Amino acid sequence: MTQDEEKMVTPESVAEENERGLDIEEALSLVEEKRYAALRQMLRDAEPADIAELFDELPKQQYAVVEEMPANVVKRILQNVTPEARKTVNELLKYPEDSAGSIMTTEFVRLKQDMTVDEAFSLIRKVAFDKETIYTCYVTDRNSHLIGVVTVKDLLCADHSTKIADIMEDHVVSVNTLEDKEDVAATISKYDALALPVVDAENRLVGIVTVDDAIDVLQDEAEEDFAKMNAMLPTEKPYLRTSPWELYRSRIVWLMLLMISATFTGMIIGSFENALKTQAVLTLFIPMLMDTGGNSGSQASVTVIRALSLGEVDSSDVLRVIWKEVRVAILCGGSLAVLSFGKIFLIDKLLMHKPITVPIAIVVCITLLATVVAAKLLGCTLPLLVSKMGFDPAVMASPFITTIVDAVSLFVFFGLATIILGI
Amino acid sequence: MTQDEEKMVTPESVAEENERGLDIEEALSLVEEKRYAALRQMLRDAEPADIAELFDELPKQQYAVVEEMPANVVKRILQNVTPEARKTVNELLKYPEDSAGSIMTTEFVRLKQDMTVDEAFSLIRKVAFDKETIYTCYVTDRNSHLIGVVTVKDLLCADHSTKIADIMEDHVVSVNTLEDKEDVAATISKYDALALPVVDAENRLVGIVTVDDAIDVLQDEAEEDFAKMNAMLPTEKPYLRTSPWELYRSRIVWLMLLMISATFTGMIIGSFENALKTQAVLTLFIPMLMDTGGNSGSQASVTVIRALSLGEVDSSDVLRVIWKEVRVAILCGGSLAVLSFGKIFLIDKLLMHKPITVPIAIVVCITLLATVVAAKLLGCTLPLLVSKMGFDPAVMASPFITTIVDAVSLFVFFGLATIILGI
Repeated sequence: MTQDEEKMVTPESVAEENERGLDIEEALSLVEEKRYAALRQMLRDAEPADIAELFDELPKQQYAVVEEMPANVVKRILQNVTPEARKTVNELLKYPEDSAGSIMTTEFVRLKQDMTVDEAFSLIRKVAFDKETIYTCYVTDRNSHLIGVVTVKDLLCADHSTKIADIMEDHVVSVNTLEDKEDVAATISKYDALALPVVDAENRLVGIVTVDDAIDVLQDEAEEDFAKMNAMLPTEKPYLRTSPWELYRSRIVWLMLLMISATFTGMIIGSFENALKTQAVLTLFIPMLMDTGGNSGSQASVTVIRALSLGEVDSSDVLRVIWKEVRVAILCGGSLAVLSFGKIFLIDKLLMHKPITVPIAIVVCITLLATVVAAKLLGCTLPLLVSKMGFDPAVMASPFITTIVDAVSLFVFFGLATIILGI
Repeated sequence: MTQDEEKMVTPESVAEENERGLDIEEALSLVEEKRYAALRQMLRDAEPADIAELFDELPKQQYAVVEEMPANVVKRILQNVTPEARKTVNELLKYPEDSAGSIMTTEFVRLKQDMTVDEAFSLIRKVAFDKETIYTCYVTDRNSHLIGVVTVKDLLCADHSTKIADIMEDHVVSVNTLEDKEDVAATISKYDALALPVVDAENRLVGIVTVDDAIDVLQDEAEEDFAKMNAMLPTEKPYLRTSPWELYRSRIVWLMLLMISATFTGMIIGSFENALKTQAVLTLFIPMLMDTGGNSGSQASVTVIRALSLGEVDSSDVLRVIWKEVRVAILCGGSLAVLSFGKIFLIDKLLMHKPITVPIAIVVCITLLATVVAAKLLGCTLPLLVSKMGFDPAVMASPFITTIVDAVSLFVFFGLATIILGI
């Protein structure tokens, strides 16, 4: 730190800084705004001294930014920062992506159980400046094991000479470094906590996750689900800052996959081409059956995917979920079939003069009911199945379900038409 | 309070309570778990004395529960609770649904600027027990105007005899009681704040919104968007506790609307019935065109709806959004058209022996490109338009866009077929 401060005041260093042209201020604001791609760009050719300077200016809770850097930049960062900063960076880096360890900060207040309230307050005053939060303090033994938690509120309401051991809460809710960050955020939200301690496999306290980071995790999670559920790969950046090329890459993969799979639906229609030639009026109902199937399926799948995300159901609930969805499907499918029967005769036959007979209407309405039931069943079971297999259920949302339900509904439609209409 | 405590200890009141049968414990846990429908049910026939008792047991920060009650229950509540509780309830009730006022708590620490740090700490110790947060304290003048904010951290780091006026931050970020609760939550998230003060039109401090309530608002908002984007009305309860009938009601409205509107798509096919009879192979491509259009449209609409929700774009950005989506659409549509051209000849013609000619493949591929462009344009502009009109853009998501895009894509398809194939 001192070394760097000296560097700052010499005229040479000022000149040097100007020459190098790395705008530390701007880099810091990029970190603040989480514009990591721009920051990577900026740091790609940065001088080692610049990187060291940036890291000296960077608040410790922002160090996690190194995870956003390419490996060679990280290497240069580690070579050039102060030993103290290197230690923090390394601690953050060794935890897997999306783990509690990867989002925790090591800037928390650590107390000992034989301290008095007064001693605790002097310690807090001394370290308050660069701690992420001081309001929840953690009590550890000499081997860093987490043994209690005490809030500043507890400290304020206690006597000056009271020992921490007497007022600390020793039933501490903590999370493991390897726990999924989304579970950690959900725990913070559930307990209305300001922070949650993170411990290693030996129950040693290594960091805390604060409520503001938990909010970011919850929001990122929702945005990821929105993207995946709608056939996109998640992008990190705000919409207006994402280039058309980046948007293209996030969208084209699923579009191609789903386009190819929709080929099978086309093949089903193709195999009933002759039936369609004799009863061309059947074609009229294909879009309605496909859309209703898709909508019914995505209603069920999105509901179940979110319930999984929020921890309201898990894959062991599959039978309860199916039983609920079957009943909903029969209610929905039944109502739609009745409405559709009326619509077919009022609009399609009377108003549009289409050659519709009662058997045709019956085929359409039974298909509708069957499609809704199949869609809801697929919509609720596929996400549970995928989640059980350890994948993200969000990809089992509307677009994927729609493609399968399309095929099912056409099979039922033409199957019934063959039987009932004898074509 | 005293009145009620007396009531509690008389043997008559105990007997009476048993007779009445309102389980206060259970009612409290219903409040805690936000199972408002069950609570309403429970309170419908409750005795006035029971309601008073429940409110005495209820933590003040839970008073907002009265907003979930039918008007006649609220009236009985107001008649029977202590004057102090009535004041708080009234304060919460006069604010519109979804406003900052409706989610704020009035349980915050209020300091005066001529207090010393020591005096502030004695006050905090005295009131700490029933305040929602003590870590951010608000400084008001004699007319309750918000003039500053001071944290317990500031107080801890200051000298005992320092005046609050000297350490308080007098640039306070505050929100108005009528501000949308989602904006308030976004502000809390943006500033990583633990709480945000809520002021009335005259800048008088009337309450605070805390970070844990902000998390709930953000999560509810995301869940509402998930529901609306997938043709459902939002439900409040966890999935497994929602009855099939409630799920049915949340899903059937949109299913019916979308089924009826899919009729128009059917009509378009119907009006080209003769073309389809001469070139039945065209039917093969209808599902693929409809699905790809739907997926492309929902990608754009969901991206824009979320960007609107997160405040990343607003309706004034419409031209920038359109320009971005047009480029993405041409990239996506172009790639899909090329892939599709290859697929049509390799799979449909060579493998499936369908009677496909180059002009047919050209019609399909141009339609594909046009569909993707139309879908992305509709997908990005409709949410902006609806938001500008003051409605929730989330209803302009996939199902709605899909229905419109279906029609557009079929028009283009048959239009091109008529021109190029001369049918």
